[in-house]
This record gives sequence, structure tokens and C-alpha cells, in this order.
Amino acid sequence: MRATLMYAPGDVRVENVAAPRIEQPTDAIVRMVRTCVCGSDLHPYHSMDPTDGPARMGHELLGVVEEVGSGVSKVSKGDLVITSFHYQDATCVTCVEDFACACPAGGYLTECQAEVSRVPLADGTLTVMPVGEDQTEILPSLLTLADVYGTGHHAAVMAGVREGDTVAVVGDGAVGLLAVLSAKKLGAEQIILMGRHRSRTDLGREFGATEVVVERGEEGIQKVLELTGGRGVRAVLEAVGHMPAYEQSVGIVRPGGVISRVGVPQYSEAPVGFTSLFGRNIELTGSPAPVHEYVAELLPGIMDGTDDPGRVFDRTVGLEDVAEGYRAMDERESLKVLVTP
Amino acid sequence: MRATLMYAPGDVRVENVAAPRIEQPTDAIVRMVRTCVCGSDLHPYHSMDPTDGPARMGHELLGVVEEVGSGVSKVSKGDLVITSFHYQDATCVTCVEDFACACPAGGYLTECQAEVSRVPLADGTLTVMPVGEDQTEILPSLLTLADVYGTGHHAAVMAGVREGDTVAVVGDGAVGLLAVLSAKKLGAEQIILMGRHRSRTDLGREFGATEVVVERGEEGIQKVLELTGGRGVRAVLEAVGHMPAYEQSVGIVRPGGVISRVGVPQYSEAPVGFTSLFGRNIELTGSPAPVHEYVAELLPGIMDGTDDPGRVFDRTVGLEDVAEGYRAMDERESLKVLVTP
Repeated sequence: MRATLMYAPGDVRVENVAAPRIEQPTDAIVRMVRTCVCGSDLHPYHSMDPTDGPARMGHELLGVVEEVGSGVSKVSKGDLVITSFHYQDATCVTCVEDFACACPAGGYLTECQAEVSRVPLADGTLTVMPVGEDQTEILPSLLTLADVYGTGHHAAVMAGVREGDTVAVVGDGAVGLLAVLSAKKLGAEQIILMGRHRSRTDLGREFGATEVVVERGEEGIQKVLELTGGRGVRAVLEAVGHMPAYEQSVGIVRPGGVISRVGVPQYSEAPVGFTSLFGRNIELTGSPAPVHEYVAELLPGIMDGTDDPGRVFDRTVGLEDVAEGYRAMDERESLKVLVTP
Repeated sequence: MRATLMYAPGDVRVENVAAPRIEQPTDAIVRMVRTCVCGSDLHPYHSMDPTDGPARMGHELLGVVEEVGSGVSKVSKGDLVITSFHYQDATCVTCVEDFACACPAGGYLTECQAEVSRVPLADGTLTVMPVGEDQTEILPSLLTLADVYGTGHHAAVMAGVREGDTVAVVGDGAVGLLAVLSAKKLGAEQIILMGRHRSRTDLGREFGATEVVVERGEEGIQKVLELTGGRGVRAVLEAVGHMPAYEQSVGIVRPGGVISRVGVPQYSEAPVGFTSLFGRNIELTGSPAPVHEYVAELLPGIMDGTDDPGRVFDRTVGLEDVAEGYRAMDERESLKVLVTP
């Protein structure tokens, strides 16, 4: 079968690989209906060590179950299912009480940009969708449940966004835009989107952003302070992961506020001392999102047409052309690339 | 009048200074009944730049109001009052909605180890105590409301400590021990106190610690993991402020847990990346405590005899001997030193 392999920075190929098969009784084999390229796939696309390659790619998958192991009970052959980008059993004490992305039996999916994927711990990782694969219009929105929508939602949930809130979203990628949508759904009154790509920030406005700040650094901070009567925002949803985004977050959050990060940090240490966080009682939170847990909450709005998170996809390529999808996202020609079989 | 001055590391003197007087209509002049030496006073005692001295010292004060400015309405001459270590108006939007210790009109008290002090913004900073200065037995516990009790309580509150919770307290100073007491009052079931001073940890056990871990670093981390079935604790209350305490906190907190800092950080940057906080969904919170806001909650337990936070004072000196108090605390002969007129 055909699968995406990254050999080195900028070098993505689609090649023949052995078809996956059931290895554990908790596995499912899923035929891809839709997958996509993630902003986080661009990190290795920039800086991967070629000795780590060729590496299978992809962690977002909407597909049809072809086969399940003997220990799988919640999904069956023929079901249209969505994955979470992290697999987990969803039954252990870590999953139930602590944090699913730390499930001792779990891990991150890494092979979904392919014709067929093996999904471990299928009962805790897959959710059956209430439609068939022929309902093509809704498929992009369903696919966002595998990562970007749940991740944007997680940013807002961890920040405790509430009715009447004042929020800033740092980053106009797919996660940032869906953090805007989530903040809006949770009742935020003022939502300032910090980003400089006009087509993206326009979509952000449609998702609920009340203001857009294109400036960065100190200038961007001053702009946000102006827009909030000098107070800054109560909640920052940081959807980038680079240090300048962190520093910007510290600059725009008000005393007693919260910085909620869902951009995977590309740094190990950051300012957390008296002048940055401690002295002003700023909370730092956020993590990879336990998106499997959010499907039940987010799916109804998609099904009834209220929410259309699939609008973050602005280009579609076939699996054979996935390299073109990486290039387009890398060069900011495309916000997020949908991949069809 | 007599006041404490720090000239250089290890050089504390009591000298004559000009008596304070009302400078702003919101000021009060308070005659000291009890004050004390704080763990945070030991930071300059170790590392103060002598060119910054001589510096007035002290931010915890129980005293009797001698005079109030024309704009003060909540306290009157003759009242026994407790300060918060930070002064604030308690009426602005920052105080009411965000964080009192960021009050634009506020600041930190710095001159309370003296016969008489000027307290700015008296209405937002002083709370009248329901006893007279002759009720000497209860005075030490009341004095803890100015800082250490409210600060320990803040650590537990910001960590969201709740019924049945699993908590570790890092540090067996006065704040750490009162964080134990606060965690106990909020319903924590398991409270692991990390500290190595037997007399202090014994008091910690009386305040509610269920276990004591004397080991530090990796050994201490392993011990806490053992005591929690390998999971770590849901909430760490960090009452030290040095980097090893931060690292220890990261090591003992479970996925999805929280590190709540009230030890003033003696560092600017710290690990917050994927392997320390982000990947395991660890929240970092904490700050200087808005202790004025906690008086109403904590006072009843002191008045009815349920709580005796004043037990953290294990030595008393007169104001003229305050240098001896610094020395005793610095050499760990004393946990916390009470100062009488």
C-alpha cells in the first residue's frame, strides 16, 4: 500500500510499504477516507535529522474500519471513525483521572498519511461518526476532531474561557483559528486574534474574532493593551509554540490571568520568575489536547451545521501529491491541506 | 522612634529614625504590638548590595491604630489591626477582578519592624481584629494573617486543593507548614511534607502532614512516587523559591496536576517545555498572596481555637534584639521569630 515517508527536511515521498495488520487484540485497521498535513508536521519538515528517516508521517485520520482485533468492542468493520492524534486506553486511572495523553499504554499516532493505518487501543482512540463516507461535505469538519479543533478547544477549556471573557489568540494557523471558534462558543465577548495572514485572520473574524492585531513583539503588545483599556486580556490562547509567541503572551496577559499553550513548545526553558509570571499571578497551563474526550462535546455543533471547523482546509490533494501539500503549507500558500485517498 | 535597618548582608541594626506621620489622607499610623522576621527577609540578609542600604525592614504588622488620615473610614484610632504585606486600595478593577498585589496604587510594606509604621491605603490594607492587644495568647496567630498563613493558604487555593486530594508541600518553613494546615482544612487526604528539619516537620505532622520525606533531589522524587503508587501528587505547593525546589516539584507532580508556587522565585527562567510541563499537562500557578482577601476566611478558625497557626513562632525577641532574630532564623536555630515592642 501507499504511505507518506519523510526522508529529510523538505523531502517527502509517497512509497509502497507493507500493509498494516492486526498486531494486538486491541488494534483496528482503518482505511483512510481523509487525512491531512498538520502544522506540527512542518517542524521535522524544517529540521529533521536525515538519520532519523525515512519516517512515516501523519496523525489525523478519518476512515473506515476494515478489521478489528478480538479485544475491540466499541467499533466494528464498516464504521466511519475519527482518531485522536494520541492513542490511549481511556480506562486506566491516568486516562480517567489525570491526563489521557500520559496513558502508560498510549502514544502518538505517526502513520496516518497512508492508504491504511493500524490504530492501537482502538476502543479508547476511535469514535464512530454518525454519517457515511459518502457525505463528503461534512468530512473536513469531522477530520478536525482528530486534532486541530479539539486542540483549539483545549486551549480555551484550560484557560477557563467563560461568558463575557476577554481573550487573545496568538497565532493564525488552523489551531489558532479554531481556538477563536472555541472561545466564541464558550462565551468570550472580546476575542483578539494576533496574526498577519489576511486570508486567515478574515476566517478568524468569521469564527468570532472581534479584533485582529497584525503587529508582533512590543508593538503587538501595545496594540492589545490599547484594545483592552490598558489591562491586557484575561486569557491568552497560545497556538504557535515559539519563544516570541510566549513572550508576547506574557506581555498581553493581565494580572491574575492565564496563558494556555497548545502550540508545541520549541523551547525547554522560559521566563517564569517574579517579573514575568509570579509577581502578577499569571497561570501557565496547556498541553497536547486529549481530543478523544472532546468529540462528544464538539460533534453536535458540526452535525447540526452550527459549526464548520472544516473551513480551515483551503486546499485538497490526493495522497500521491502529499509532498505538494507540505510545500504549500510550508510556503504559507495554504493554511491546512486536506488529503484524499 | 526605633526601627530596624539592614546595612549589608548579616548587618542588621536598630536605630533612631524620624517617626512616621500621615502623608496621604488614606494613610494610617500604627503602633506595633507584634511584628516578625520573614523567610524572605533572609534573601537580602544573604545577598543585599550594601549600596542599597541602609534599608528599612519588615512587612508583617499587628498593631494599634494611633491616627488615620481624613480619607480612612474602615479603621479608627484604638483599633487592633492586622496588615497585609502588600498594600492596595481593594476597590479598583485590578483589585476586585484581577489581582490585588498588582493594584496600580499599591506596593509592598517595607518598614514594619519598627515602633510605629505608616500604612498606606489603610482601608484596603488593614483589617480590624475582634480582640484587644491584652489578649496576648492569640496575637501570634493573628500576626500570621499578615503574610505566612495567607500565603500558605493561597498556595492551596491556587492549586485547587479539594476533598480527598493528594498534595505535597515542598519546604518546611513557616509558609510550607501553613500550606500543610491549609491543605488539611481544604480536605486533602494525603499531605506529603518535604523537609529535613525534624522539629519543623513534627509541627507539620500536627498541622496535618500524613508523611514526611526528608530526602531531596532525585531521591526525594522517588520517595514521593513510592508514597503515591507511582503516580505522583495532584498538587504541589512549592514554598521555597529556589530552582531545586522547582525541579523537585516537576518530578513529583502527576500528569494533569498543578504546581502552585508561593516561594518567591530566586530564578528568572525555568523548565516549561514538553518534557517538564507541557507534555504532561502540568499547570504552573502561584504568586505573592492577596492575604487581605483571606482574613475573613481564616480568622474564624483562629478565634474559635480550631487553628493555631501562631505555633510557627518558636522564638520571641524584643525590637532592640531583632538582629538576634535574623541570626537565629538564618542559622536555622529558629523557624520564625516573633518581635515584641
